[in-house]
Amino acid sequence: MNLKTVIHIIGILLFFEAVSMFAPLAFAFYYQDGDAWAIAASILITMLTGLIFYASTKTKPELRVREGFAIVVFGWATMAAFGALPFVLYGAVPSYTDAFFETMSGFTTTGASILTNIEVLPHGLLFWRSETHWLGGMGIIVLSLAILPFLGVGGMQLFKAEVPGPSPDKLKPRIKETAKILWGVYLVVTFAETLLLMFGGMSLFDALCHTFGTVATGGFSTKNASIAHFDSFYIEGIIILFMLIAGTNFSLHYRALKGEWKSYHKDREFRFYFLFILTCLLITAPIIYFSVNYSVVDSIRSAAFQVVSIVTTTGYATDDFEIWSSSGQFVMLILMFIGGCAGSTGGSIKIIRIMLLLKHGVTEIKKLLHPNAYIPVRLGGRVISPDVITNILAFFILYMLIFVGGSFCMALMGLDLITAIASVAATLGNIGPGLADVGPTDNYAAIPLAGKWLLSLFMLLGRLEIYTVIILFVPEFWKK
Amino acid sequence: MNLKTVIHIIGILLFFEAVSMFAPLAFAFYYQDGDAWAIAASILITMLTGLIFYASTKTKPELRVREGFAIVVFGWATMAAFGALPFVLYGAVPSYTDAFFETMSGFTTTGASILTNIEVLPHGLLFWRSETHWLGGMGIIVLSLAILPFLGVGGMQLFKAEVPGPSPDKLKPRIKETAKILWGVYLVVTFAETLLLMFGGMSLFDALCHTFGTVATGGFSTKNASIAHFDSFYIEGIIILFMLIAGTNFSLHYRALKGEWKSYHKDREFRFYFLFILTCLLITAPIIYFSVNYSVVDSIRSAAFQVVSIVTTTGYATDDFEIWSSSGQFVMLILMFIGGCAGSTGGSIKIIRIMLLLKHGVTEIKKLLHPNAYIPVRLGGRVISPDVITNILAFFILYMLIFVGGSFCMALMGLDLITAIASVAATLGNIGPGLADVGPTDNYAAIPLAGKWLLSLFMLLGRLEIYTVIILFVPEFWKK
Repeated sequence: MNLKTVIHIIGILLFFEAVSMFAPLAFAFYYQDGDAWAIAASILITMLTGLIFYASTKTKPELRVREGFAIVVFGWATMAAFGALPFVLYGAVPSYTDAFFETMSGFTTTGASILTNIEVLPHGLLFWRSETHWLGGMGIIVLSLAILPFLGVGGMQLFKAEVPGPSPDKLKPRIKETAKILWGVYLVVTFAETLLLMFGGMSLFDALCHTFGTVATGGFSTKNASIAHFDSFYIEGIIILFMLIAGTNFSLHYRALKGEWKSYHKDREFRFYFLFILTCLLITAPIIYFSVNYSVVDSIRSAAFQVVSIVTTTGYATDDFEIWSSSGQFVMLILMFIGGCAGSTGGSIKIIRIMLLLKHGVTEIKKLLHPNAYIPVRLGGRVISPDVITNILAFFILYMLIFVGGSFCMALMGLDLITAIASVAATLGNIGPGLADVGPTDNYAAIPLAGKWLLSLFMLLGRLEIYTVIILFVPEFWKK
Repeated sequence: MNLKTVIHIIGILLFFEAVSMFAPLAFAFYYQDGDAWAIAASILITMLTGLIFYASTKTKPELRVREGFAIVVFGWATMAAFGALPFVLYGAVPSYTDAFFETMSGFTTTGASILTNIEVLPHGLLFWRSETHWLGGMGIIVLSLAILPFLGVGGMQLFKAEVPGPSPDKLKPRIKETAKILWGVYLVVTFAETLLLMFGGMSLFDALCHTFGTVATGGFSTKNASIAHFDSFYIEGIIILFMLIAGTNFSLHYRALKGEWKSYHKDREFRFYFLFILTCLLITAPIIYFSVNYSVVDSIRSAAFQVVSIVTTTGYATDDFEIWSSSGQFVMLILMFIGGCAGSTGGSIKIIRIMLLLKHGVTEIKKLLHPNAYIPVRLGGRVISPDVITNILAFFILYMLIFVGGSFCMALMGLDLITAIASVAATLGNIGPGLADVGPTDNYAAIPLAGKWLLSLFMLLGRLEIYTVIILFVPEFWKK
């Protein structure tokens, strides 16, 4: 492990983080809420630290697999640690734990909040809060399509051949090229949603913040009532559409922008994702209709928004699903374990893994009838290597282990069973709102201190596909 | 599929079921509670049906894999269907659904009850109720050590070489020999516990009934308060010991009886099982101590009984774990997914699978560090074939799918979230008591009609290692 390289690159990341704080600084100057100095001070501290990290470790950065893991994990954590500064310095979030939780929730595109009243925050801080989502989303697209496939994490190697960019020779040039292309797509999508939201009557500020929350599948809103605040059919429709887009593999959008529109239809994962959401809608709408006093249209409207919001792991809300019957709540709880497509900004287990897990189950039943036959798992016409399958299965087991262990720890801290379970499901899956005390109309303020740190860790674990973080705890990883 | 062979053998099973009803008939005569006629009538109906099944399908029974699956599933279901007769005929359980649920719960050694007042039942019926456990336990030992390994179900093929009996050439002679040996062990264990319980002051009747409930990891008691009724340190100790024995691979007991006492220590699964229970005890006792007003001794005593009862999937109770803090309840809920050793009468996922799932997770993390190395999963010194691992992983996925789908269906019927989840966990894992409305001091009487049938199916699915039942739903299974 070459720690110097790691610190060197984290220095660069911090520098970029500081630069990206100029946007909220601009909003702070424009709205004159008095938060400009706190943001300016944070820029200074972050930039200086970044420069020190960078300069003190003069090195020719060579990216090997181990450094890759370390940069991703420590990079994300450091970004959250410094991103928390504006909230603490201004005093909007006096506790550093709370500010760290909020920023980690932002950078991991989770959207779980400890704020009890969002609307009292100054505009600069609100913008920074939403921007962390957007930056996190940029990070995750590149991570999942350009880095993880090469680290062999959790079945992502499936996507080695599929991502755009030059041939997969060396990690560094490939990451650069792929990042450029995908960030281009990300910018186009961001621009489009912002325009469409402004067209629906939002201010530039609100439109940008909610676009950041959507395209990164984050879920931070500038309003206490989330998207319900706007009570607009049009705005809900636009956000549903862009949540769906954000939950899709961004390399498909890249192909579509190049004119290959059929890519969506050809992609097995996208088809499953689309049909799965449709099925959940057909299940949830009647449950809402029969358990809450809604009209047919309102039931479908609420079901569509909430289902898409949870499956894509965004976490925006237009309805409190805790007033639905227990079966509706159960659907939401289970959807927290699905997630978007691979290569999207969505979190959780992800559609491709769910698909292959189900296919594997079916294959094993077939094998019982033909004990001596070779029956591979197929995706489309393509045979999936058993190594990929066992890798995905192990991912699923680790995910469940962390979920169970985490829920136990949260229960130990005195949370009731459902809150404990849902808080871990919602943070590990990078969704945001859970059930019971952390439901869509509540927040994470009342979680004990230790719980907030633990949930922050789960957000990071979930966001970095678990393996990436866990590997740092293997002693062998640190040996020369 | 040779349906004639299946019906022929089920005829024999029914005949044996009728014969085994003579024991409760004897107790009915002895105690003179007025239930003798109902049992006698049930014997007649069951025996006649058995003879008709047997005689109408003159065939030279050849056991192939497909017939094996069909006999196991339909045999178990038919036993429950006819075993319900005494309860209905006498009128103790007027609804056939309830009686079927209770008997299925007996034969699957689950121990979930719809009875609100157990103690008003006549002695004959109570004895029959407990005897269904004992018969189910006999069935499951043979199934898991002599039949499933050859059907290749859920990793049980690991035990092909380990079971006593002649060399694995043909299914039929092997089943016969293995059955004889294991039933011998089962009888010895039954005899020992009955004696020890009588020594503690129980009547022969109570001793036999509770022994049946223990050695089969069933959990039916003759008392409303379950084992808490006796409030005896000695009786609790004996039952803990025999629950532990019942949760152990019976082929280990066979070797021990032959003098090879070291078999226990040598067996990796048994060691894991023992250490796992010890760990759970060390976690649970402090939770009880700090959340309930118990002394240190009472906390350990309650923890020991409840942990062993749930891990072995027995379901006897000396304490209501719903008065514990949420973390204690969470431990109990998670323990419902562990289960006893393979080849024991315990249900649920089973220790060997849990072990191999964990080992697989660790192996995949190691592979990340050495992408090109061949790292097999090992158990002791033995390399476990990847086929067995993927088979176990698929079992786990199917188990979770049924758990999730089942919980959703139960929630749809109007149960609250925790009751819905716990009722499926407790029946699929063949435990018995769950949480909330189906907790240790409650029962399944209030579950809706459709829910009782569904939970009965889950008991069967869990007991027959899922695959065995699911395969009957594959159309190809029925083709000639």
